Amino acid sequence: MRIVRFSYKKRVYFGIQEKEKLRLLKSPPFEKIKPGRNLVPLSAVKILTPTEPSKIVLVGLNYRDHALELKMLVPQEPVIFLKPPTASLAHNGSIIYPAGVGQLDYEAELAIVIRKTAGNIVPARVKDYILGYTCLNDVTARDLQKKDIQWTRAKSFDTFCPFGPWVETDLEPNKARIVSRLNGVVKQDSNTSNFIFPVESLVSFVSSVMTLFPGDVISTGTPPGVGPMQPGDTVEVEIEGIGILKNPVKSA
Amino acid sequence: MRIVRFSYKKRVYFGIQEKEKLRLLKSPPFEKIKPGRNLVPLSAVKILTPTEPSKIVLVGLNYRDHALELKMLVPQEPVIFLKPPTASLAHNGSIIYPAGVGQLDYEAELAIVIRKTAGNIVPARVKDYILGYTCLNDVTARDLQKKDIQWTRAKSFDTFCPFGPWVETDLEPNKARIVSRLNGVVKQDSNTSNFIFPVESLVSFVSSVMTLFPGDVISTGTPPGVGPMQPGDTVEVEIEGIGILKNPVKSA
Repeated sequence: MRIVRFSYKKRVYFGIQEKEKLRLLKSPPFEKIKPGRNLVPLSAVKILTPTEPSKIVLVGLNYRDHALELKMLVPQEPVIFLKPPTASLAHNGSIIYPAGVGQLDYEAELAIVIRKTAGNIVPARVKDYILGYTCLNDVTARDLQKKDIQWTRAKSFDTFCPFGPWVETDLEPNKARIVSRLNGVVKQDSNTSNFIFPVESLVSFVSSVMTLFPGDVISTGTPPGVGPMQPGDTVEVEIEGIGILKNPVKSA
Repeated sequence: MRIVRFSYKKRVYFGIQEKEKLRLLKSPPFEKIKPGRNLVPLSAVKILTPTEPSKIVLVGLNYRDHALELKMLVPQEPVIFLKPPTASLAHNGSIIYPAGVGQLDYEAELAIVIRKTAGNIVPARVKDYILGYTCLNDVTARDLQKKDIQWTRAKSFDTFCPFGPWVETDLEPNKARIVSRLNGVVKQDSNTSNFIFPVESLVSFVSSVMTLFPGDVISTGTPPGVGPMQPGDTVEVEIEGIGILKNPVKSA
């Protein structure tokens, strides 16, 4: 099931996609999914970020093929960092290339959307706490990342966290092809079967540090092939079974 | 003026302290401070965190005396990191010592509370965007900080961001004595006149990365003398002109 958050005639809704239409939900999808009677045409809506997360948690190196590429040891534990909610950007929204940044990179990722409040969840119970999965682009000012050593500034500018276009509830998240394209040219092409830490381990780990809330997002790291974008470019993240997140890049 | 956020008879209010009483505000203090007629006794309320921030932004090394202590060069730009809102803890609330953490340190800091939405603010205009100042303890799992290199996990556990007890609007933030005490013994004793980056520079810098919202918190780094806490300890952060933020430490 695809759960879409969108605006239609100036109001915000959640809906379930049914071919070319969206069936409105009676309430946010976190507690229980309650389909209503009303349908609106997909072509008439503006797609918003799938949720408004209170937290966006990301992990560093999490693909075995990326570790090989970087000639790095496979980590024993995930390394986490945060993006602020203000970095959120919807499908089709413009990534703003900040003045003073020397290199702006795309990083295609599978993101997990949390369904209910989660603290100290063991891996075997993690699936109960997940609403579904979406595409995410961990936009990174690579020069600032190297300069600061801490990754936060490099990854926290407004618009540096496109995610969407919707949440797919029915996905085997540890076995999905993930691709990024820049102006239509494939740049990253891997599979989440290369995860060092599968979804269950990541959510359990993060929930042992901080309490997660409905709508919070945990992103799962990027495969090999990251690289720079320029103003005027268009970047896509495609995940098999979810869809395509597409964003243009604009100068500030 | 001291602006206090508190609960009283199960409802949440903002109020202004008048000796032993709190004068309720008619609305949150961010747009305009509108004192009402009702007074409640300070002794009858439970003090809450001064705001519910959407973002808590902190900076690394920002005291000249701390740079000297660490024999580090004075940085050219601030290094920033984030704590999640779930790390927030009020005055008198318990800091939870997580299982598996080897060393839990206090870090006394002056924190800035944002008054209105701020993006790309020049230093000369920063004061218009500040509601006031409060005390903050940047609780840090020092062993995890060293292990991860990225600071996020070490600083992001639930209860790792005590701040309060209130917002003081009338303070010269770049010239205030700052002290921490562990079980009554002074551990840090410095003055914000040692700031490498004063408040105006920090807010301008952070606002050039991410849009700040009313109630957001920017903390300004810690002076020399950080050290470990144990379950059973009580830690205080005192800033001249603001007051004392006091929190006990408990095991998980």
